[in-house]
Amino acid sequence: MKKSPLARQHCSVAQTLALVGEWWTLLIVREAFFGTRRFGDFQARLGVARNILTRRLNALVAAGILSRHEERGRGGPVAYRLTESGRDLLPVIIALLQWGDRWIYGQDAAPARIVEAATGKDVAPVSVRAEAGQTLMPRDLLAVAGPGADEAERARFAAMQEEAADRRRARQS
Amino acid sequence: MKKSPLARQHCSVAQTLALVGEWWTLLIVREAFFGTRRFGDFQARLGVARNILTRRLNALVAAGILSRHEERGRGGPVAYRLTESGRDLLPVIIALLQWGDRWIYGQDAAPARIVEAATGKDVAPVSVRAEAGQTLMPRDLLAVAGPGADEAERARFAAMQEEAADRRRARQS
Repeated sequence: MKKSPLARQHCSVAQTLALVGEWWTLLIVREAFFGTRRFGDFQARLGVARNILTRRLNALVAAGILSRHEERGRGGPVAYRLTESGRDLLPVIIALLQWGDRWIYGQDAAPARIVEAATGKDVAPVSVRAEAGQTLMPRDLLAVAGPGADEAERARFAAMQEEAADRRRARQS
Repeated sequence: MKKSPLARQHCSVAQTLALVGEWWTLLIVREAFFGTRRFGDFQARLGVARNILTRRLNALVAAGILSRHEERGRGGPVAYRLTESGRDLLPVIIALLQWGDRWIYGQDAAPARIVEAATGKDVAPVSVRAEAGQTLMPRDLLAVAGPGADEAERARFAAMQEEAADRRRARQS
């Protein structure tokens, strides 16, 4: 995978992007969610060169997002499946898809719909929710230092919270 | 923004990645969610070169994800804010962050926590839900042709559904 100064950032968003943020990577994961398992099918559906696809599939296996299996049937003995961590990317993929439906294509021109298999109904918009279940907006959230933050990071989060509190006071006055 | 054959794919995931999938882009959006608004603060917090940051901020403004405002105060007259479409990226960012917390750092070493400001409690894991609210797993979902799909895409989704049905039958037999 591409290395960048970002790969050194102590941040779960940056590290996840370092792992899955390459153009092709998340689309291979999307295809796997849609049910694709064979090299030839990935290639046909993504329109990607064999050497690039080989590299990406190997990277996804190395990252533990896909696993490689022997599987009889159409298209050779090898099949790829999402692992538990790969399946856990579902909310990322669906959130990206819904954003594009809304802001790029418009709902009336969405190329695909993701439905609940049992009912055929569209899934709900992916949202950030409180423990109790209500949807939260950006203004309802606060980023605070996590258990892995060092001294400098704690100071930085504290400064950001200070600024956010200043802005709240400014809005209210 | 980087052009790629993917930009031609008729898919909301691909198009969204074409717009926001560049390494720096989503991290600038993350910073904006965390409350950063000034060029100098983005630069200090992301550790990015001025010319790259300028290009990315301009691209985000052109894409309608950030807006540029005149704003008095510390750090010059210009401030950047998330637009409605930018704020709508919140579930993508939080889903990426939670994935990294879980699969890269581990919860006990998470660099940051996202909490509900009113209660201080961690937000719930972002998940894909049915209209009625229950969390859905990949096996509960089906990708079907959307209103914008052409004939070839409809045939492709139909073939994928056929394959998925075959797999379900194989599992049950």
